[in-house]
Amino acid sequence: MAFTWTRHHILGLEDWQREEYETLLQTASSFREVLSRRTKKVPALQGQVVTNLFFEPSTRTRSSFELAAKRLSADVLNFAPGSSSLTKGETILDTALTYVAMGTDIFVIRHQQAGVPQTIAREMDRLQSGVSILNAGDGQHEHPSQALLDLFTLCCLLDDERPRLELLQEKKIVIVGDIVHSRVARSNISSLTAAGAEVHLVAPPTLLPAFFTGLVPAHNEGKLFLHHDMDTALINADFVMTLRLQKERMTAYLLPSLREYHQRFGITRDRLKPCRKGVKVLHPGPVNRGVEISSDLMDDPDFSLISQQVTSGVAVRMALLYLIGNLKGEGVPL
Amino acid sequence: MAFTWTRHHILGLEDWQREEYETLLQTASSFREVLSRRTKKVPALQGQVVTNLFFEPSTRTRSSFELAAKRLSADVLNFAPGSSSLTKGETILDTALTYVAMGTDIFVIRHQQAGVPQTIAREMDRLQSGVSILNAGDGQHEHPSQALLDLFTLCCLLDDERPRLELLQEKKIVIVGDIVHSRVARSNISSLTAAGAEVHLVAPPTLLPAFFTGLVPAHNEGKLFLHHDMDTALINADFVMTLRLQKERMTAYLLPSLREYHQRFGITRDRLKPCRKGVKVLHPGPVNRGVEISSDLMDDPDFSLISQQVTSGVAVRMALLYLIGNLKGEGVPL
Amino acid sequence: MAFTWTRHHILGLEDWQREEYETLLQTASSFREVLSRRTKKVPALQGQVVTNLFFEPSTRTRSSFELAAKRLSADVLNFAPGSSSLTKGETILDTALTYVAMGTDIFVIRHQQAGVPQTIAREMDRLQSGVSILNAGDGQHEHPSQALLDLFTLCCLLDDERPRLELLQEKKIVIVGDIVHSRVARSNISSLTAAGAEVHLVAPPTLLPAFFTGLVPAHNEGKLFLHHDMDTALINADFVMTLRLQKERMTAYLLPSLREYHQRFGITRDRLKPCRKGVKVLHPGPVNRGVEISSDLMDDPDFSLISQQVTSGVAVRMALLYLIGNLKGEGVPL
Repeated sequence: MAFTWTRHHILGLEDWQREEYETLLQTASSFREVLSRRTKKVPALQGQVVTNLFFEPSTRTRSSFELAAKRLSADVLNFAPGSSSLTKGETILDTALTYVAMGTDIFVIRHQQAGVPQTIAREMDRLQSGVSILNAGDGQHEHPSQALLDLFTLCCLLDDERPRLELLQEKKIVIVGDIVHSRVARSNISSLTAAGAEVHLVAPPTLLPAFFTGLVPAHNEGKLFLHHDMDTALINADFVMTLRLQKERMTAYLLPSLREYHQRFGITRDRLKPCRKGVKVLHPGPVNRGVEISSDLMDDPDFSLISQQVTSGVAVRMALLYLIGNLKGEGVPL
Repeated sequence: MAFTWTRHHILGLEDWQREEYETLLQTASSFREVLSRRTKKVPALQGQVVTNLFFEPSTRTRSSFELAAKRLSADVLNFAPGSSSLTKGETILDTALTYVAMGTDIFVIRHQQAGVPQTIAREMDRLQSGVSILNAGDGQHEHPSQALLDLFTLCCLLDDERPRLELLQEKKIVIVGDIVHSRVARSNISSLTAAGAEVHLVAPPTLLPAFFTGLVPAHNEGKLFLHHDMDTALINADFVMTLRLQKERMTAYLLPSLREYHQRFGITRDRLKPCRKGVKVLHPGPVNRGVEISSDLMDDPDFSLISQQVTSGVAVRMALLYLIGNLKGEGVPL
Repeated sequence: MAFTWTRHHILGLEDWQREEYETLLQTASSFREVLSRRTKKVPALQGQVVTNLFFEPSTRTRSSFELAAKRLSADVLNFAPGSSSLTKGETILDTALTYVAMGTDIFVIRHQQAGVPQTIAREMDRLQSGVSILNAGDGQHEHPSQALLDLFTLCCLLDDERPRLELLQEKKIVIVGDIVHSRVARSNISSLTAAGAEVHLVAPPTLLPAFFTGLVPAHNEGKLFLHHDMDTALINADFVMTLRLQKERMTAYLLPSLREYHQRFGITRDRLKPCRKGVKVLHPGPVNRGVEISSDLMDDPDFSLISQQVTSGVAVRMALLYLIGNLKGEGVPL
């Protein structure tokens, strides 16, 4: 592989290059192989410290990163906002600097406000700390590891041996749900259009962004389409990604009842009829069964990729931690 | 040892066979020896993932399982219900499936509702996931690892070198307290009667089960007796197990005051007079000092086995994790 | 090194001997070297169990101890008071005894009441459990590891190669803030006067202890001084330690507004003018920016030692755990 990884922080996918996606897919593929061995650990990050700074609670994503780090033999510190110095008036940046001084090599950061990981990354660079930031979801901005695990799941499905970007060329992928508030959608739009896929967004008018300018990087080959009607959107779809519905949206009058939402935008066996044969459904989880997707479809391995997404998550996060952790120039070969 | 371990899940003791108890006692005995070395770890479950799903909070039992898993060199994930997806509407089963997809090999599950570990175990089998379930307490149903550590503690006391079931043959064991609501009592009745012990239950009428049918497996040799009066129950007792009193029972008018409970059912030096010389007292913890047992008796090593129970807990849980973890056919020898 | 470490518990610094300080500084210095390697772990405490009993929440100190223990290859258990048996009526001592029975070798204890670590240490000795206690802060009494990391930070600054007590001989160190309620101040007074430094305390009258008898051990060579006026106190100071202001003090009418406090006792560039050239500022963290210290000064590496203090913390805590963990006579060489 001629390409050399140089990206120090994983903040978002907007400016990712083709070679970066390819390297990530190949590295994740190697780690998926490690995970199939009996001893699922490699010493790649031995002695390094990965600190999870999760200001917004999350069991699923934190556990996935924690397991990824442990399988790379890193030591993991978990920052728990409840019992923290933040309640004592310390700034987020000072909390991060404390963990840097303790010896943190990589931060995995989730925050309810967009831009927090970026701010911390800038400060790490300004201080020449050498510490890397991995954005695990910031407000309504980006959730790059989720989009990368979705990408890896799709590419592996199309060629298990050699997952690569071109496999998604001209595939039709429909993203359904609360697009406007979704960091998952935003990151996926970048990666899927970069792969040359056609991305179709469908949502109630209140949950679809009014302006698309800037959503797709200029150099991408893929195309972005907008729909309010599910049946049109799903015609010949290869993959359908449903987004999690935040119940808070309802209290903000952006949505009718859950039942009505399910009737109009929920994924069911019937609804998938206009899709291409072999269509698969993705969901970032946790799922509200019977809202975004019908319960029977979710449990049907012929349709649902949800379990594969979670499994991909560990391999992809190992790959991300490995790639940025090895930039220190003391890399242990895989 | 001719017997080969085949049980995949540890859900309850009702259907345990004699050979299983014996294997468990021998395996726990080996691990107790490991725990006396300076380096208390063995690589038996290296690379395997043990996930604690504790829907009901518990520091004591979770720490005991966590330490057992770490000493077998497993990676441990702790699911914290407070900051979890459950608050986001995900079902328990979907939470479990997420951790399976991440790579969980064994779940240790505690839940306030009886039957949850069984339901998850059935689903694991239906999906042929190969994942094992270890019930760490489900509602008022079973708490098998507690009963097994009690069994191990008693057998080791009788023959430290070779703890085995027959040592309890015809011993008189009195279980005192809130029998009807107690998963600890239920599991202990299975194991102790299986060992051929006489089990005497004593409790206020409101806390004693009205019907005994089914409480003792048909093939067991031991006998089960029922008492309302402590002094009669304790005559010639070899061991007295006190149960933790849940203060919630009082608000439900099932109990008089704590003081009155202690006067009638609390274990004191005086109360133990009708027992056999050398009688020992057990308690699953945490203890309400001065309620279930007098403070001075609890601290007297001539009477109390409470500390030994906790120590046995780590060895017994290592044995359980080891036995079910090794069913995958890739066992590392001890 | 002729001196042999014999102290089993680290409860406070009041009775520490010169040789103990020197040994601690040398050991921490070795571990600081370990932390600069790529693989930052040593097998010194492999198989030993360090249990963090933090009854008072703390992210910073707990993480520091956790990382120190992990880098010595110990297994770490974290006791979380929220989800604990304490809510079920168990005494603190019974909680500790449970963790002893599980196999704890060293407890790291923080409690809002002075004396709790001492009480548990006494019980450990009475029971001949061999378990060591490390006080991580008890009420307004002592916080020895904080004072030792401050000492180590100062000595390393003066001689990075060979940090030792005599370097602080006759240095002028000013401690500013809520002296009367501060366990950090109390422990620092012991260590700094033992090193032969002049310690000057400055605070509003409501936050300065009325009586000094007993604050300085009789055999120490250093001197202790008392001030209400900052400008006088700071003349020719070599180091200024600011203490964290607990906002609770304000509701107790012990303090005027935060703004007024900052004007009178906050550390700013201007305020430091009477100090010696090269003066450095310390703070135990977490900092209320703009209250105890101005924001720009805190971020200026020419003045602030805050980051070095946190880094020293891991090395000093490794040294403490190593020294008491090795008393068991089965020491692994460093």
